Amino acid sequence: MPTPTDRVRSAYRRITEADRPEVWITLRPEQDLAVEAKALEERLASGEELPLAGTLVAVKDNIDVAGLPTTAAHPGYAFTPEASAPCVRRLVDAGALVLGKTNLDQFATGLVGTRSPHGAVRGAHDPERIAGGSSSGSAVAVALGMADIALGTDTAGSGRVPAALNGIVGLKPTLGLVPSSDVVPAARPYDCVTVFSRDLASGGAALAVMTGPEPGDPFGRDWPADVRLAARPGGRVAVPSDEALAPLADGERAAFGKAVDALRAFGARTAEVDVSPLLEAARLLYDGALVAERYAAVGEFLAGHPEGADPTVSAIILAAEGVPAHRLAADQHRLASHGAEARRILDGFDALLLPTTVGHPTLEEVAADPVETNSRLGTYTNFVNLLDMAAVAVPAGTVDGRPFGVSVLTRAFEDQVALDLAAGLVGEEPGEAYPAPGVELAVFGAHLRGQPLNHQLTGLGARFVEEALTSADYRMVALPGTAAPDGRSEASPSKPGVLRTNGRGTSLRCEVWRISPAGLGAFLAALPPPMALGAVTLADGRAVVGFACDPAAAEGAEDVSHHGGWLAYLASGRG
Amino acid sequence: MPTPTDRVRSAYRRITEADRPEVWITLRPEQDLAVEAKALEERLASGEELPLAGTLVAVKDNIDVAGLPTTAAHPGYAFTPEASAPCVRRLVDAGALVLGKTNLDQFATGLVGTRSPHGAVRGAHDPERIAGGSSSGSAVAVALGMADIALGTDTAGSGRVPAALNGIVGLKPTLGLVPSSDVVPAARPYDCVTVFSRDLASGGAALAVMTGPEPGDPFGRDWPADVRLAARPGGRVAVPSDEALAPLADGERAAFGKAVDALRAFGARTAEVDVSPLLEAARLLYDGALVAERYAAVGEFLAGHPEGADPTVSAIILAAEGVPAHRLAADQHRLASHGAEARRILDGFDALLLPTTVGHPTLEEVAADPVETNSRLGTYTNFVNLLDMAAVAVPAGTVDGRPFGVSVLTRAFEDQVALDLAAGLVGEEPGEAYPAPGVELAVFGAHLRGQPLNHQLTGLGARFVEEALTSADYRMVALPGTAAPDGRSEASPSKPGVLRTNGRGTSLRCEVWRISPAGLGAFLAALPPPMALGAVTLADGRAVVGFACDPAAAEGAEDVSHHGGWLAYLASGRG
Repeated sequence: MPTPTDRVRSAYRRITEADRPEVWITLRPEQDLAVEAKALEERLASGEELPLAGTLVAVKDNIDVAGLPTTAAHPGYAFTPEASAPCVRRLVDAGALVLGKTNLDQFATGLVGTRSPHGAVRGAHDPERIAGGSSSGSAVAVALGMADIALGTDTAGSGRVPAALNGIVGLKPTLGLVPSSDVVPAARPYDCVTVFSRDLASGGAALAVMTGPEPGDPFGRDWPADVRLAARPGGRVAVPSDEALAPLADGERAAFGKAVDALRAFGARTAEVDVSPLLEAARLLYDGALVAERYAAVGEFLAGHPEGADPTVSAIILAAEGVPAHRLAADQHRLASHGAEARRILDGFDALLLPTTVGHPTLEEVAADPVETNSRLGTYTNFVNLLDMAAVAVPAGTVDGRPFGVSVLTRAFEDQVALDLAAGLVGEEPGEAYPAPGVELAVFGAHLRGQPLNHQLTGLGARFVEEALTSADYRMVALPGTAAPDGRSEASPSKPGVLRTNGRGTSLRCEVWRISPAGLGAFLAALPPPMALGAVTLADGRAVVGFACDPAAAEGAEDVSHHGGWLAYLASGRG
Repeated sequence: MPTPTDRVRSAYRRITEADRPEVWITLRPEQDLAVEAKALEERLASGEELPLAGTLVAVKDNIDVAGLPTTAAHPGYAFTPEASAPCVRRLVDAGALVLGKTNLDQFATGLVGTRSPHGAVRGAHDPERIAGGSSSGSAVAVALGMADIALGTDTAGSGRVPAALNGIVGLKPTLGLVPSSDVVPAARPYDCVTVFSRDLASGGAALAVMTGPEPGDPFGRDWPADVRLAARPGGRVAVPSDEALAPLADGERAAFGKAVDALRAFGARTAEVDVSPLLEAARLLYDGALVAERYAAVGEFLAGHPEGADPTVSAIILAAEGVPAHRLAADQHRLASHGAEARRILDGFDALLLPTTVGHPTLEEVAADPVETNSRLGTYTNFVNLLDMAAVAVPAGTVDGRPFGVSVLTRAFEDQVALDLAAGLVGEEPGEAYPAPGVELAVFGAHLRGQPLNHQLTGLGARFVEEALTSADYRMVALPGTAAPDGRSEASPSKPGVLRTNGRGTSLRCEVWRISPAGLGAFLAALPPPMALGAVTLADGRAVVGFACDPAAAEGAEDVSHHGGWLAYLASGRG
C-alpha cells in the first residue's frame, strides 16, 4: 500500500508527465500536500480511522476550497473563501488531499469544456477533441491519473458528459443529497455536486462521506423512509426505442446495443419505453425560460464585467435578462408534467439506460459552432436534474477508438439502485455508497437468497449485507408448508421456526439484510402467523431484528437445530 | 335522520330565506337535486354504502362541475366542462349533491370577496362587512346553512380568511393531497382545494373521500411512508411572540390569547417562537415576482378581454406581465430558504397557532382601498402554501360581536395533526379525516395509554384506534422489569408477555393503534428482547400486528391470564 506521501509524489509526477496545464486553474504546490500527507500519516499511525486517507482530489473551480480562489473560470469573479464547501470539507475530514482547482466552462455554462479564458480542455485520450464540460478539468485530471477522484457539478450534464468523453465514471446523485452550499450557482434548484472516478468503488466511497444534510442548506433533502437500498436482482431496466437513438452515429448505436446486452447478460430484464417526453423536457433547459436561472445566478455580475467573460457564455446568460417571469412559471409547470410522465415511464422498472452523450466533436468543430455542438451533447442529459432523477455514467466500450459511455438513470433517491446496475454493467462488485436509513434484519429460511420468499425482501428494496451466525442460544424447527388455496396465489413454503433457548441452544446460519424503516414495517404487516420479528443476537454479540416463531406452532414440529441452518436441513433431503 | 330529499328541500328553503343572491353564480334548480336525491335514496335502499349520502355541497366557481359553467367570476371566461374535477367527482361518488357554483374574487385573486362582477359577497353575520375571499360565496353558503359543506380554493388564504370572517371551519390540506386538476389556476404550484364546514367532523368526512392521487395530476403528491397519524397527546404548540401579533386590534389579541389558553387547557404545552421569517415570506406573494404565476395562469386572457374584468384583479395580474424571470427565480430561492427556516421553527413542535386574519373591514373600507385592506387580511395566511404547510382554520370566539378565527399550522403531510389540535381547540372529538397509510398494531402492556412506554408510540405519530379483545387463544405472563443502568436512561418497566396457546387460552384486553409503515419499522428496530411482533388475532377475527414474547423469557414467569389484561393485573396490586 503506497503511503499518502507516496501518493502525493506520484500524483505530481503524473501531472508533470501529462502536460495538460489547461486542466488546472489553481494547482497547489506539491510541498503543501507533502506536509498534509505527513500529518495524515501521523493521524493514521495514532489509530485514527480515515476512510479516504491519501485520496487525491481535484475540485472544480466553482466549489469553494478554503484558501484557494474560487473563480468559476472568470478571473474577475474570483474570491478566496475562508471555509471549504461542505462537500469538500467532508472529503478532507475523511483524509482526502486537495490537489487544486480545475478548469471548467465559465460559470458551468456549457457541455464542451472549451468556454474558458484558461483555454479549452483537451480530451484525455485525443487532444484534438474536446474534454466535454462543464467539469472538463476535473474529468481529465481523473482520466489521466493525476487525481484519484474529482468533484464536478452538474446541472445539464456537466458531471456526466465529460465522464463519457474521457472514459471514466461520473456519479450524479439525487438533487440535495450532497450539499451544494458554497458552490457558484448555475441554475440553483437544479445544481448538483458530482464525483468523477476511474471505478465505481472509489467514487462511491467519496459519496459515502459527502452525502447528508448540512445545516443552513435550503436545497438539502433527506432520504425518504421507504428508500430502496438495492436494485432488484438482475434488475428490470427500461431502454429507449430506436427512434430515440436516432441522434447517435451507427457505431454509437452499436456500442449502446452492446451495453444493453451486457445488462441482460448480468441478469437484467429489459423493455423498450418511449422516452420522448424526457427528451422534450431536455430541450426546455436552454430553449425555454429556465435559462433565467443562470441570469439570477450571475447575470448582474456578467452585465457589469464584460472583460474576462467567455463570449458564448455571456451571450447565453445575458440574453435571459428580458425573459418574462410568466414564461418561467409556465415552463416550470411543463416540467412538473414531464416529471409525472417520467415517473410513469419508470413505473415497474428499476432504472432507464441511455447513452450518456452524442458524438465527440473536435475542438475545431466546437469553435466553429459553439452552441449547436454543445446542444447535441446534452440530448440525453439535460432533463435528468429538471425531472429530479439520479444518474450514474459509466464507460461502455469505444467507438472509433474513442470512449463511449452510457448512463443508468433512476427516480430520485434510488441512487444506490443506479449504482448497483452500473456495477453490473462494468463488472464491478456492487458497493454500498450511500448512508441511507436502514434496519438490519436476520432471515433464516424462505427469505434467504434463492429461496421462495426472497422476492418479498428484494421487492421492498432490501439489500443483502452478509451471511452470519447467531449466538449459541437458538433452536430451529421445521414448520410444514401449506399449498396455495388456488392456482394463482402464493403457496406457503415450508419454513424454519427459530426459537430462543435458555442457554442450551445452538448457533444458526442466517443472512443479514438491510431494509428501509418503511420496508420493515410493510414486511412485518404482511407477515403471516406463526412468524414474528424481534431482537436476535448474532455470534459477534450484535442484536439485530430477526425472525422468531410462535412457540405454539413449534410444538410437535421436528427439531432441525443439529443441521445448523435451513439450507443444510434442505440439503439433507429431509425438507 | 332527514332523508336526502328532506335535506334538499330544507337547503333550498334556507337559500330563499337567506336572500343572498350574490353567493351564487350558478344555482341549480331544486327540481334537479330532488331527482338526484330520489336516486340516492334508491341506492341507499339497495344497500349501497355512501358515506356522504345527501350532503349538500356548494362549489366555488373556479372548480369544474360537469354541465355547469366554470367562470372564475369572469363571464367571458366561461366554459362548460363535460366532466367534474376529481375533487368534485369523488364527493358526488360518495353521495354528495352539488347545489351550484359560488361567487369568488375573480380568478381567485383577492382575500376580500368583493372583486366580482356578480357583486360583493356580504359577510354572513354582518352584511355591512365583507365575507372575505376569494372563496366568499362558498363560505357564506356554509355559514348561513345553505350548504353542508363547500369547496374553496386557497393560494394565499382564500380557504381560511373567509372561514374566519364567517365563523366556520376551513380545512386547507397539504398541497397536492387533494387533486387540483380541473381547477382554474391562480398560482398553480401553490393552489389548493379546500373545504368549508360548520364542524371539523363534516369537513373531515369530505376530505376523507377527496384525498388521494389522481392519474395525470402533475402536482399530486402521496403521503410519505413516515407520516404522523396523530398529534402527540395534548400537543406541543408554537405560538407567536407579542411583536408578531402587533397587526391585531386589542380585542383580537385578547381573543387569540384565549385560544392559546384553550389549547393549554386541552393539555397542549405552548412556547413562543419567532415567526418573522414566515411573515416575511408572506410578503413575497404579492410584493415579489410570484404574482407572475397569476399572469401565467390567466394573464393573456385578461389582456385580451378587458370587458368583464374586475379592475383591481386585472391591474394586479397585468402588472406582472413584465416581471423578469430572473426575479421570479430569485424569489423562489428565497422561498426555499424561508421554507427551511419554517421547518427549523417548527422543530420539536406539533404545530404553530396563529390568528387566521387581521380585522374585518366593511364593504365600504375595501372599496375605498382595495389593495391595502386585502393585503392586511393575508398577514398570517399568505406564506402557508408558499412554505408547504397544512392549515386548519377554526372559529375562536368573537371580537365586537363578530367571529374571530385562529389557524393550526403544521408541516406538510401533518394534516391530521392539525385536525387533532383544532378539535381540541373547539371541543370536538378528534376524528380521522385522511386515508394516510398506516398499519394496525395491538399493544398489551407498557405501551397502553397512560403506561410508561406509550410515548414511544405517540412519539412516532401513532394514533389510538380502539380498545379490543384478542381471540381466546392467548395467555399472558408478567415479565419482571429492570432498573435503568444509570440515572438518565429509561428503566424497563415490568411488562406482560403475550403468548399464543394451542386452543386452551383466554381472550386478552389490548389497544389497537395505527402507525405509519416507517414508524412500525422504527418501533420494531428499537424493540428490546424478549419482545417480538407478529400477527395477533382479535376477537372479531381480524389479524393485526401485535406483541408476542420470546417463550424462553416467559419460562417461570407468573401466568396472569386470568386477569384478562395487563391493567386489571396491575390494579390487582400484584404488578
